[in-house]
Amino acid sequence: MKNQLSYKNGALHFERANISQIAKKFPTPFFLYSETILKNNYSAFYEAAKKAKLHEPLICFALKSNSNKSLLKILAKLGSGADIVSVGEFKRAIEAGIPAEKIVFSGVGKTKEEIKYVLKASKHGPYSFNVESIEELELISEVAKKLDKKARICFRLNPVVQPITHKYISTGNKTHKFGMLLDDVFTAIENKKLWKHCTLVGLSIHIGSQLLDLKATEKAIGKLCEAALLMPNNLEFLDVGGGLGVDYHPDDSKKMPELKTYMELIHRSLEKHYYAYRSKPVRVVFEPGRKISAKAGILVMSVLRNKVSEDNNFLIVDGGMNDFMRPSLYGAYHELFPVKKAPAKKLYHVVGPICETSDCFGSGRKLPALKQDDLIILADTGAYGYSMGSSYNLRGRPAEVLFKDNGKTLIINKATSYEDLT
Amino acid sequence: MKNQLSYKNGALHFERANISQIAKKFPTPFFLYSETILKNNYSAFYEAAKKAKLHEPLICFALKSNSNKSLLKILAKLGSGADIVSVGEFKRAIEAGIPAEKIVFSGVGKTKEEIKYVLKASKHGPYSFNVESIEELELISEVAKKLDKKARICFRLNPVVQPITHKYISTGNKTHKFGMLLDDVFTAIENKKLWKHCTLVGLSIHIGSQLLDLKATEKAIGKLCEAALLMPNNLEFLDVGGGLGVDYHPDDSKKMPELKTYMELIHRSLEKHYYAYRSKPVRVVFEPGRKISAKAGILVMSVLRNKVSEDNNFLIVDGGMNDFMRPSLYGAYHELFPVKKAPAKKLYHVVGPICETSDCFGSGRKLPALKQDDLIILADTGAYGYSMGSSYNLRGRPAEVLFKDNGKTLIINKATSYEDLT
Repeated sequence: MKNQLSYKNGALHFERANISQIAKKFPTPFFLYSETILKNNYSAFYEAAKKAKLHEPLICFALKSNSNKSLLKILAKLGSGADIVSVGEFKRAIEAGIPAEKIVFSGVGKTKEEIKYVLKASKHGPYSFNVESIEELELISEVAKKLDKKARICFRLNPVVQPITHKYISTGNKTHKFGMLLDDVFTAIENKKLWKHCTLVGLSIHIGSQLLDLKATEKAIGKLCEAALLMPNNLEFLDVGGGLGVDYHPDDSKKMPELKTYMELIHRSLEKHYYAYRSKPVRVVFEPGRKISAKAGILVMSVLRNKVSEDNNFLIVDGGMNDFMRPSLYGAYHELFPVKKAPAKKLYHVVGPICETSDCFGSGRKLPALKQDDLIILADTGAYGYSMGSSYNLRGRPAEVLFKDNGKTLIINKATSYEDLT
Repeated sequence: MKNQLSYKNGALHFERANISQIAKKFPTPFFLYSETILKNNYSAFYEAAKKAKLHEPLICFALKSNSNKSLLKILAKLGSGADIVSVGEFKRAIEAGIPAEKIVFSGVGKTKEEIKYVLKASKHGPYSFNVESIEELELISEVAKKLDKKARICFRLNPVVQPITHKYISTGNKTHKFGMLLDDVFTAIENKKLWKHCTLVGLSIHIGSQLLDLKATEKAIGKLCEAALLMPNNLEFLDVGGGLGVDYHPDDSKKMPELKTYMELIHRSLEKHYYAYRSKPVRVVFEPGRKISAKAGILVMSVLRNKVSEDNNFLIVDGGMNDFMRPSLYGAYHELFPVKKAPAKKLYHVVGPICETSDCFGSGRKLPALKQDDLIILADTGAYGYSMGSSYNLRGRPAEVLFKDNGKTLIINKATSYEDLT
């Protein structure tokens, strides 16, 4: 059983939240988040970085994993920064109270309008543009010149490593669109006219998401440090990206690197590859998404009906792939738990109402006999859940509900209906 | 070159529409549809069915492939019915002028509220509920009883065949959630109390989408006819589903069965397996989606920039996987064409701005050298395009633009911005 999910008197609780009680107030499907877990995840991350004596760690929460404004406000109050990839995410972060000087702007496809907007939005623009190509730097330089601003630049280095993860969320190899080869970084640096309105402040890496093995991370951080020493000026920060995995599958927890291990590895790498040659402290920036948000959310669904096709048992639920894409998009595994405890009886395919075979949350899952209106939850859906969802099949979007520290529950994003779509 | 796309004086045209002219009026990315192609596709389908002497063919366009109201209105005027899978799609079809008596309600997850709504919305309810399980029939019967109505029932038969297509869009096997085994259909029929408020009017099959080989289809239609003969009453219709493929890849066109071949196969199967034993004509219902809409739409995008990583050339465009999911979700192939004709120079990865490696519209595509603001289109995006799209990365949704028969262009669905999302 996952530590944030437990049965009390046979009733599934998410942290202290009694799920069946909450489901009386909100129609399923809905996302349920825990303020306490979200805060704990952020604090654990930050504290681990501090304990490993990393210099002025800045945690830039990756909005693509979850951009709910109420959740971002909670993180903003704890001091979180933001990793954003669009002007929409920039605006959302600002609205949630995250200041521009804590925002890093990532992504290969920043448009001129986006660059202009974020540069104008505050005195110094975002904490950094994490630049992915020479052409992008040229554009930022051109826009900054027009606005008579200095843009803060960080190159995203392609460390040319191959982490162990799903091919779709692996991002640090040459055939991937992300990052720049070191030679190209030098080419960009040597072009003096690009730097009249740009300042090089950092270097970053991000080798993929849901990493369960730190070997590639260690190698990549070594390369990041080596590259940093070759830069024409001392850098303000090194951005080690995100991507630390979470244990979606029960078997993952054994392989999952601890935060402490991860931070100590960064500390060791910095000592060995950076501080051996430089004394001026360099800030460490992080871009975690799912590590903070995945386990802070669950998807609460109701059983619509059972269906038996010879030896195949289908449990049809009211949540669909449009609400939560990861199983269909990545073949991702997420645990399923009945809200009322009962002995598991048979193996089920748990499927949604969408007319796609991939609309399946789990196959061969041992579950108790459940009937119409019984509740079932999909675990660890706080990251890449609502943010990736759609209205496919003209379905309304589910509500997002927050269980607060004080035990109160409130809607932080209303469900939408067909009428809202039009 | 695809027949609906051609260069005239070096400028790419979509049917008669000059794409670069249209792109001056609407910011990219946007979906561009052709009224003429849409109408032609519908008419070709209907006429082929008529020519093959199928009885009173009813074409129920699958809204999940494209639910744009203006496009549905065009189809409605031609006499199209609708295949819907949610109350949202039902409402959309009705709003577009498709009457309930031409609507079939498919899907494994119909809710009580949905059943109630569609039964109440017209005198006799929808043309049929395509029932996927015994529990569903029980629910329909219960709701119909309460409303004192008779619900028109069609069982979706699982023909237990394995078509050649992508595993995600193959739907006619026992391990899939779709359809009922014949034994379960009999069990449902024998339960007399379920039939006081239900009438058995049809049987249906749907073995998957994007089928390129008709062997499985032939087998399935044979089984459909055999089952129909075993029903307790003469059926009004046989629903042969949808799923006929389109040639996304240039190599597909050779293998692609012609509409004529498909319709004649149905005719032959009916003669052999049905009319050999029954004289009363049985209507044929179809549920095509992509066959009607895929080639009626393209996605018009602009180049944001080029990026070179050693021998990898990336062309970064302003459309992303959130706008068009098929390549990332199914690994689907779609052709890419520059809007200005020029000799193809190098191989490119054509990628979007989304922070996912899967946000790639094509790898190793031979294209001319394109620069910032040059236009490029993704072909055959009229089906499972906008309808599957999302606002992932807090991106606004693209506009949908229609090139009308009369040569005029109009917005049939406005682009949305971040502000619209909130």
